[in-house]
Amino acid sequence: MEKNIMSLTMYQASIPSFARMLGNLSAILDKAATHAKAKKIDPSVFINARLAPDMYPLSRQVQIATDLVKGCAARLAGMDVPSYADNETTFDELQARIAKTVAFLQSVTAAQIDGSEERNITLKFGPKEFHFLGQPYLLDFVYPNFHFHLTTAYAILRHNGVDLGKMDYVGSD
Amino acid sequence: MEKNIMSLTMYQASIPSFARMLGNLSAILDKAATHAKAKKIDPSVFINARLAPDMYPLSRQVQIATDLVKGCAARLAGMDVPSYADNETTFDELQARIAKTVAFLQSVTAAQIDGSEERNITLKFGPKEFHFLGQPYLLDFVYPNFHFHLTTAYAILRHNGVDLGKMDYVGSD
Repeated sequence: MEKNIMSLTMYQASIPSFARMLGNLSAILDKAATHAKAKKIDPSVFINARLAPDMYPLSRQVQIATDLVKGCAARLAGMDVPSYADNETTFDELQARIAKTVAFLQSVTAAQIDGSEERNITLKFGPKEFHFLGQPYLLDFVYPNFHFHLTTAYAILRHNGVDLGKMDYVGSD
Repeated sequence: MEKNIMSLTMYQASIPSFARMLGNLSAILDKAATHAKAKKIDPSVFINARLAPDMYPLSRQVQIATDLVKGCAARLAGMDVPSYADNETTFDELQARIAKTVAFLQSVTAAQIDGSEERNITLKFGPKEFHFLGQPYLLDFVYPNFHFHLTTAYAILRHNGVDLGKMDYVGSD
């Protein structure tokens, strides 16, 4: 465990946590793919599974979770947000999206993120705009939304019988 | 929105976010109680609902979510962790637990929490001990676990037909 922490920074509160949680998500999806293979279940059953008819399926949960953190890293750093096609339909494709997102996160440096507490952030959802400062964007928007989609992905798989435990979600390193 | 943010602190990254998310949880449980009443469903059906046979029911999700943040606030501040009886079986009792937790969070000051990045934190689960420093305890343990149980509570209710949307989870203020 890192002993030389100093003061909490915007970088520490974002990029390493995001990368760590995406690593856990990747391991969870691997377990789901292995389970599907062992039980001879078409993997698309899991990829398209939902907890309620008007909730997103597993694939979309992974897409949104990755969108949230690539968007956060880019916006806090003042960069353009990378655009992904949202066309993943297999476990391998979802894994590739996660790996691409982690690589992007790791390309952003602490120097780019630190000091972004008061950076002006604008999010556009169709015609609506939402304005945040960097710190509440991270704490009140990205964090809850990111964990919401990660947990929902986990819960979809648990509900469908994949043998996972909370340590798979939280990680143990 | 707060304009005078300065640098991210351990207090800002914990107590206000926790209180806000517990407020959202309270509103979600209110909607579930109202739904049960309108549909003449015994509220205990929701209180005892689970997403999988070996996942905790709604009541326990709320208990653990509140435990995580009262534990975090107390440990970062170097105080004894308040002990709750874990005997809630109704929506009113769960609401009382949430209100009690929020009141405790609000009793802890920024001066008590700030600077706790390297505070030694020990968690005991039965015979096992886990050692953290304050910052990784907050970022890698409390945050993922707290959101995990909040989202699972939400997902249990969504899966059981309560009319909720993600704005109920994330909040809109």
